[in-house]
Amino acid sequence: MITLQELAAHLEGVAVGNLHLKISGVSEIQRGKKGTITFLSNAKYRGFLNTTKASAVLVNDVSVLEDKSGIVVENPQLAIARTLKLFNTEPSHLAGIHSTAVIHKTASIGKDVSIGAHAVVEAGVSIRDNSIVGAQCFIGENSVLGTSSVLFPNVSIYHNSILGNRVRIHSGTVIGCDGYGFVTDKDIHHKIPQTGTVTIEDDVEIGANCAIDRATIGTTMIGAGTKLDNLVHIAHNVRIGKGCLITAQVAIAGSAEIGNFCTFAGQSGVAPHVKIGDRAVFAAKSGVTKSLPGGKIYAGMPAREIREQNRRDAVYTDVEKLKRRLKILEDKPA
Amino acid sequence: MITLQELAAHLEGVAVGNLHLKISGVSEIQRGKKGTITFLSNAKYRGFLNTTKASAVLVNDVSVLEDKSGIVVENPQLAIARTLKLFNTEPSHLAGIHSTAVIHKTASIGKDVSIGAHAVVEAGVSIRDNSIVGAQCFIGENSVLGTSSVLFPNVSIYHNSILGNRVRIHSGTVIGCDGYGFVTDKDIHHKIPQTGTVTIEDDVEIGANCAIDRATIGTTMIGAGTKLDNLVHIAHNVRIGKGCLITAQVAIAGSAEIGNFCTFAGQSGVAPHVKIGDRAVFAAKSGVTKSLPGGKIYAGMPAREIREQNRRDAVYTDVEKLKRRLKILEDKPA
Amino acid sequence: MITLQELAAHLEGVAVGNLHLKISGVSEIQRGKKGTITFLSNAKYRGFLNTTKASAVLVNDVSVLEDKSGIVVENPQLAIARTLKLFNTEPSHLAGIHSTAVIHKTASIGKDVSIGAHAVVEAGVSIRDNSIVGAQCFIGENSVLGTSSVLFPNVSIYHNSILGNRVRIHSGTVIGCDGYGFVTDKDIHHKIPQTGTVTIEDDVEIGANCAIDRATIGTTMIGAGTKLDNLVHIAHNVRIGKGCLITAQVAIAGSAEIGNFCTFAGQSGVAPHVKIGDRAVFAAKSGVTKSLPGGKIYAGMPAREIREQNRRDAVYTDVEKLKRRLKILEDKPA
Repeated sequence: MITLQELAAHLEGVAVGNLHLKISGVSEIQRGKKGTITFLSNAKYRGFLNTTKASAVLVNDVSVLEDKSGIVVENPQLAIARTLKLFNTEPSHLAGIHSTAVIHKTASIGKDVSIGAHAVVEAGVSIRDNSIVGAQCFIGENSVLGTSSVLFPNVSIYHNSILGNRVRIHSGTVIGCDGYGFVTDKDIHHKIPQTGTVTIEDDVEIGANCAIDRATIGTTMIGAGTKLDNLVHIAHNVRIGKGCLITAQVAIAGSAEIGNFCTFAGQSGVAPHVKIGDRAVFAAKSGVTKSLPGGKIYAGMPAREIREQNRRDAVYTDVEKLKRRLKILEDKPA
Repeated sequence: MITLQELAAHLEGVAVGNLHLKISGVSEIQRGKKGTITFLSNAKYRGFLNTTKASAVLVNDVSVLEDKSGIVVENPQLAIARTLKLFNTEPSHLAGIHSTAVIHKTASIGKDVSIGAHAVVEAGVSIRDNSIVGAQCFIGENSVLGTSSVLFPNVSIYHNSILGNRVRIHSGTVIGCDGYGFVTDKDIHHKIPQTGTVTIEDDVEIGANCAIDRATIGTTMIGAGTKLDNLVHIAHNVRIGKGCLITAQVAIAGSAEIGNFCTFAGQSGVAPHVKIGDRAVFAAKSGVTKSLPGGKIYAGMPAREIREQNRRDAVYTDVEKLKRRLKILEDKPA
Repeated sequence: MITLQELAAHLEGVAVGNLHLKISGVSEIQRGKKGTITFLSNAKYRGFLNTTKASAVLVNDVSVLEDKSGIVVENPQLAIARTLKLFNTEPSHLAGIHSTAVIHKTASIGKDVSIGAHAVVEAGVSIRDNSIVGAQCFIGENSVLGTSSVLFPNVSIYHNSILGNRVRIHSGTVIGCDGYGFVTDKDIHHKIPQTGTVTIEDDVEIGANCAIDRATIGTTMIGAGTKLDNLVHIAHNVRIGKGCLITAQVAIAGSAEIGNFCTFAGQSGVAPHVKIGDRAVFAAKSGVTKSLPGGKIYAGMPAREIREQNRRDAVYTDVEKLKRRLKILEDKPA
């Protein structure tokens, strides 16, 4: 428990109303709970401000508070992220290796590492200080997990993968599986051995049930600070820049190169061997079929600049207008 | 083995032909096997009725049987579901905890529970009577699994998840992984802790390799009787009503609210924060970009009522007609 | 290490330049490394030929080598596949069963089989000679794994599944989970028991986190030599022919029949109960809504022959032309 005033100080904001209010947690504005603080960051939810049962609200404009208690901050979403950190419920992990974990004697385990039940750590693996390997995880030969990283239960890391510091990988995700490489000769698909690896830089988070292929040769690369949602496919030899946001069910095909700070909305896809510039944004379900410059918003299949895509979507209305204009001409007496 | 007459009694139908025929199982109509019963529920397969080697057929119209043996029932699909239950091949599980399972001493395990090899059940977990936890499953701290539920092998349930009665979850599925919540400040994506949970009501079935995110605050909710296919993504704070059908590779983005008895065909998607009314139906690959009323069929990206979508798809034909009409006018002598 | 001349002999090609050059591995042309051989199979990368640091290049046309060392072969991609096999880095597995694996006493284990840590092999399972079962894999009752097959860690195989010889299945993939079969009666979705099985023929490779449903009755079938990428969904009773290429995030709905040597690009989908002829090719994101003949290329949603799809995509340009022609008519003095 913390008072409104103490929380405001922590958030570098200004408390308004009952400064001694005890805050026991955070609740959603539309399902607000007494004793908690809520927040208003999406204008869609403003209607709930008058009826919420939450005792205080994080806002960036004092006037919307009316007679409610609250905290005024520059960025309410950032403030709520910090507040949630105070009330975080993620289980803590005592350092130590569970007796059922199978750790090869040549594996190097850092200080204060936690390895869960039934995990398997193969020869030559290195797990650096303060990292957590969840129950039933698999880490293949010679892979490296940096410091303060977390593998949730049931993650599979193939051999020779390199994972950085403060990396978080959710359950079911597979890192370093074979790229889809075959060469077809007389109707036989011959396997191209996938001898490369995967490199995941610092501060990357990867959701559940993703698949990140190892490179054929060289490395598949996920740049620092990039965040992947669930069920994402990253093919072999893909190179993703820093700070990208890649949401659920996106697929990036082989050898594509994605710049820094790009955003991919849900179910979008990228063709093999294309190159995308920095800060490109792709709408949901868009399909990138060729290289595209950065700094623009794209949509559709094939993905085009959104203004062009919108004009194309308007073709139906255009045709209705054309029909009427044509009718007038046709009806003119000769 | 059961006779045609006994099976008809069980199905509350009427046996026709050789009532003493022994039925040893069920086969597909196009690959019918002697001694088995087959069924005709999809008109596409009617052509196989004359050639099938199955000894009897479940139908809802006695006239299609001609001289074949069979059972006439109101709903052949429902009858075949009941018949298959008689011949079910799913392995039975003896109650008991495998010696290699790791169960925390504070976990509460009900009567006649089965826990498979190498499963991990953490502190404070509650598993109610008659439930089956498959081999290699993980159940995180303080989660609850109701009565008569089944987790197939390799399911991962994060902490604090609430699963109801008669829930079935297939292998590889992850429940309660972090929602995709980040707030970006000066090109750094700060993590918004995901402190909420997941609630899965009674009689929900979830396919393989799905990912159901925990809420940021509050709970992600899957309503009673809803059925999910494989590789489905449900984001944080999504609320899905009762009795929905959500097929393979569907993605529902954060905080979307789905009514009761909605149907989502394969690879469809829903944008964040939208609200869908009861009994809405979405065609394969449709993309819901805004809130839509229930009771209607939608298709396309962005999803529109199917009649409007079909008119739009017809624009190509319209344009061909316009070209011809324009040519006539152009060719007119001045 | 091998000399250029020795490698050329192995590849049945012709060495050019420094025949005694020692080759230590393979590198990418754009990130070539001294002492390695690279290859030129995609014309997009020809620009790198002059600047690559690789010491030799595999080509199919001697003239592009200029003064570089290299090997001339008919099919550089096939040659590179063979070369990579020489330098393969996949960990070898000693035959033997890890002490933590739980193997039922009625399971039949062939010669030189390797079973990893924490794997579970149930009653009546048969694993044939030289196969590798990765750590933490699950193989359910009475399933069969042929000779020289590989299950990577964390694969789940349900009961009664039949897998052939030289099959490779990557981590997280689930074989034999229930098909999505429900029959709805008064808003209740009654489960149709999924009593059939899955058959995977010889030389099939399946990527990570795929889901292949068991049949309701009969079998789901993946034909010999077919290759699946990651996150693919194959529904119950689907029958896929021989030598198909099915890339990432493809979904094939229930009872669809796919011919031999078909290709599905990323995120494409197939509706239930349709039939596809041999050697059909589907572009990325296409959606097959009806049966289609083989030997053609299809694109779009609904999938149409690509020429027709392209004409339809051109409708926007057509409409712009129509507007101009109509304006001329309208502007004509009466």
